[in-house]
Amino acid sequence: MSHFFRLGDLAQRVGGRVIGDPAREVRGVATLEAAGPDDLTLLTDSRYRKTALRTRAAAVLVGPGTSLPGHDLLETAEPYLALAEILELFHPPPPRRAEVSPDARLAPDVRLGADVEVGPFAVLGSAVSVGSRSVIGAGCVLGEGAVVGEDTVLRPRVVLYPGTRVGARCLIHSGVVLGADGFGFATSAGKHRKIPQVGRVIVEDEVEIGANSAVDRGALGDTVIGGGTKIDDLVMVAHGVRIGPDSLLVAQSGVAGSTRLGAGVTLAGQAGVAGHLEVGDGSIIGAKSAVFEDLPAGSFVAGIPAVDHRIWKRAVTHVKKLDDLRREVRSLRERLRVLEAERGGGAEP
Amino acid sequence: MSHFFRLGDLAQRVGGRVIGDPAREVRGVATLEAAGPDDLTLLTDSRYRKTALRTRAAAVLVGPGTSLPGHDLLETAEPYLALAEILELFHPPPPRRAEVSPDARLAPDVRLGADVEVGPFAVLGSAVSVGSRSVIGAGCVLGEGAVVGEDTVLRPRVVLYPGTRVGARCLIHSGVVLGADGFGFATSAGKHRKIPQVGRVIVEDEVEIGANSAVDRGALGDTVIGGGTKIDDLVMVAHGVRIGPDSLLVAQSGVAGSTRLGAGVTLAGQAGVAGHLEVGDGSIIGAKSAVFEDLPAGSFVAGIPAVDHRIWKRAVTHVKKLDDLRREVRSLRERLRVLEAERGGGAEP
Amino acid sequence: MSHFFRLGDLAQRVGGRVIGDPAREVRGVATLEAAGPDDLTLLTDSRYRKTALRTRAAAVLVGPGTSLPGHDLLETAEPYLALAEILELFHPPPPRRAEVSPDARLAPDVRLGADVEVGPFAVLGSAVSVGSRSVIGAGCVLGEGAVVGEDTVLRPRVVLYPGTRVGARCLIHSGVVLGADGFGFATSAGKHRKIPQVGRVIVEDEVEIGANSAVDRGALGDTVIGGGTKIDDLVMVAHGVRIGPDSLLVAQSGVAGSTRLGAGVTLAGQAGVAGHLEVGDGSIIGAKSAVFEDLPAGSFVAGIPAVDHRIWKRAVTHVKKLDDLRREVRSLRERLRVLEAERGGGAEP
Repeated sequence: MSHFFRLGDLAQRVGGRVIGDPAREVRGVATLEAAGPDDLTLLTDSRYRKTALRTRAAAVLVGPGTSLPGHDLLETAEPYLALAEILELFHPPPPRRAEVSPDARLAPDVRLGADVEVGPFAVLGSAVSVGSRSVIGAGCVLGEGAVVGEDTVLRPRVVLYPGTRVGARCLIHSGVVLGADGFGFATSAGKHRKIPQVGRVIVEDEVEIGANSAVDRGALGDTVIGGGTKIDDLVMVAHGVRIGPDSLLVAQSGVAGSTRLGAGVTLAGQAGVAGHLEVGDGSIIGAKSAVFEDLPAGSFVAGIPAVDHRIWKRAVTHVKKLDDLRREVRSLRERLRVLEAERGGGAEP
Repeated sequence: MSHFFRLGDLAQRVGGRVIGDPAREVRGVATLEAAGPDDLTLLTDSRYRKTALRTRAAAVLVGPGTSLPGHDLLETAEPYLALAEILELFHPPPPRRAEVSPDARLAPDVRLGADVEVGPFAVLGSAVSVGSRSVIGAGCVLGEGAVVGEDTVLRPRVVLYPGTRVGARCLIHSGVVLGADGFGFATSAGKHRKIPQVGRVIVEDEVEIGANSAVDRGALGDTVIGGGTKIDDLVMVAHGVRIGPDSLLVAQSGVAGSTRLGAGVTLAGQAGVAGHLEVGDGSIIGAKSAVFEDLPAGSFVAGIPAVDHRIWKRAVTHVKKLDDLRREVRSLRERLRVLEAERGGGAEP
Repeated sequence: MSHFFRLGDLAQRVGGRVIGDPAREVRGVATLEAAGPDDLTLLTDSRYRKTALRTRAAAVLVGPGTSLPGHDLLETAEPYLALAEILELFHPPPPRRAEVSPDARLAPDVRLGADVEVGPFAVLGSAVSVGSRSVIGAGCVLGEGAVVGEDTVLRPRVVLYPGTRVGARCLIHSGVVLGADGFGFATSAGKHRKIPQVGRVIVEDEVEIGANSAVDRGALGDTVIGGGTKIDDLVMVAHGVRIGPDSLLVAQSGVAGSTRLGAGVTLAGQAGVAGHLEVGDGSIIGAKSAVFEDLPAGSFVAGIPAVDHRIWKRAVTHVKKLDDLRREVRSLRERLRVLEAERGGGAEP
């Protein structure tokens, strides 16, 4: 890429300031190790400071108060936000085709907005509606009555079960299944009879859902992924769950049926929340944790079952020292026995 | 929907009784919050009693002994079973098409029963057989020799590897992969050589498998999902496992190679069972637990490693109080030191 | 199958020796229970010795020093390696078709090596390259510029996002998604702004990836799966991770962003490694464990958080006995109170 931006121009765009040479030319963005003399790189984690000192990058994007002798810096209050903006400059989205592949199969009553792209071997059922400028990737299957908003992208091989609604400006990655039946059975005499799952999945605007994740339709009501929520890969959201807005569900986490996660909740990797619970706004659930009770807003929990993360940290430390504690109790018992023997009474039970 | 059922008629169908007005008209089924004056709703969990008191529903389906002043009730011994029956009344399955899409590709020797539906872009390999009234969804791929029984539904984008057998009246959700290779390698001098996986996957009758789950073929023998077993989304069943009949595997749970789960076993969400184990009939494995040893029939375990759930609950309580226990031990030591000092002997070690 | 091998010939091929009759005819390989009088079977785990004594098999493949009265044995130093070789003899790969389905859609500039097979409804984007003798299964989608090496097999319904590179002699199972966006957002005032993910996924040679697993593209640099690494089903590898060579990731395990797993690392089932960590060569991470700190080479850890597996085992034992420990502390306190009362001082706090 011969196109470049000057460091000073980048600073202006992201509302930051240059510490060093604002005329420095930047032609790309790369990691600390991979950056060449034309690249901008990023340092936000002090663990990588040593690597940063050796980087060959043209300049380093940093947060406030970082010094890095021998390097030109672009300092901003929120370096990740600046990174997002700068990467969009260097990597504009590829030109859109806005055509419906002759190899796609659309029911006669499908409604498409302007400039919709539909890839080969996609199947759009009866009464499906897709908003303007949206992309339905190759091999996607949109069941009867599914609705996709404007400027939304479904990567190849997404399935929307009948009646599923996806909002505007969403990004749904390959392998995602929205609207499969919730896991609801009435068990009688050891046999499991299916309870028809007649609710829907509603994905609001600006939601991203990662590869191979699954969101099940509600049993009676709807499963709702609130606006601005971001879901990573291989995440499971069960029937009747409501999430968000603006929550984060990291990879392989899961939420059981009818639970409600408030606004801005973070579920870290491989964490789980049991069914029929309420998790308050802004709560953070640590990686690999399991929540088994309601959490008030602003909770920060970890462990199985999840407790306040400070309690969990101390408990974990104690558990590792249980050897010592048992040894100490044994020693106390011995000393006590000596005292008891001396005064001639108190037989050991 | 203008069609309706009278509450008394519904009671008769499900073997329940009306407490209130049997002539009440019911036109749908909805959640406690969403129900309007024509809807039946459901109350089985006392946590939702308050919400139930405010519901606008025409009537409430309840278990024995529930009172709810101001509401007509439909009381049954097994309200979830009644819900299943009533939902089937209000939501009959959509009419079937029973046609093979001209966009599907079937090998010349595929055998189809009567009234089979095959969706667009499905691929059925050589010697595949599909029983009467079954549905093969859009984009499914059935490898050579795969067999599907009668009245079974494969939602879009299911893959059956060659030789996989699925029974009658099964429901396999989108993204499921049955019969991929088990994870078997012979490691020599640090290199992993593949052990060909030549067994099959056998799914018996009336099994449901949730979105994006995977069941691997056996290494030598078969992996068997017993009749009536229900599997949720993103579940992993490894090579040579045998499960069921009538077991439940909740979302994101997993069973490692060659393990056998008996009849009516429940594996709760995100739980796991290690390889080469036997889990007895009717056992329950708590959410997020990990089983590392054989379990006798009727076990109810939790934790990592899983132990009897009562032991686990006490252990969890104790762990949270380890702070207190350590403090107490420290205090005992101090008091002991005082006693020892008074009698002038027993130096602290 | 009427074709057979004599036991002595099999021994010669795998570098083992016959204990018994080398002329014995072997026509297949089966489990201890299922084996008939023409089959070879395998015994490596002493738990199955009883079953082995009853097997009807023609002969039993065993490791050094196993005796099994009444059975002909094929003894080898590495019985699993021998099993792999023998299974390849009895189950040669099916004949290849080496044709491009007329129902596949290839961009005009796709480059295919010799004897490439492309299944129906596969989509190969612009500038895609596939090496000789490779197989692209039905319904696969290979984005712009994706590269597949020689002798690699993509089972049906694999997605390679644009720019993804898969090496030679790899096996990628159905439902796998390589190169979806990493989970990277800049959060400002509670809103999550996407950080464009502009790195790639690089899968080196001889890698196997199980059904429905996902490997995300790097944010800036690449995500790299080192040569000879084997990944099981439903595994998640996040952006910027580097793994291997020759590592094993068992089902439902996950690795968070930017972490590096060295050579020959084993991540057991449902285990996880947090982001930005280094796990040294040859480390073993126990099932259901969670690694939250760097691990030196040769570590063997378990637990949440993961610690040395011996510490974990003792801690687990202690936790189960916390009831006893608390009872003992209470008893010590009582005895101490007696002593203190006798000498007339030290009031209990």
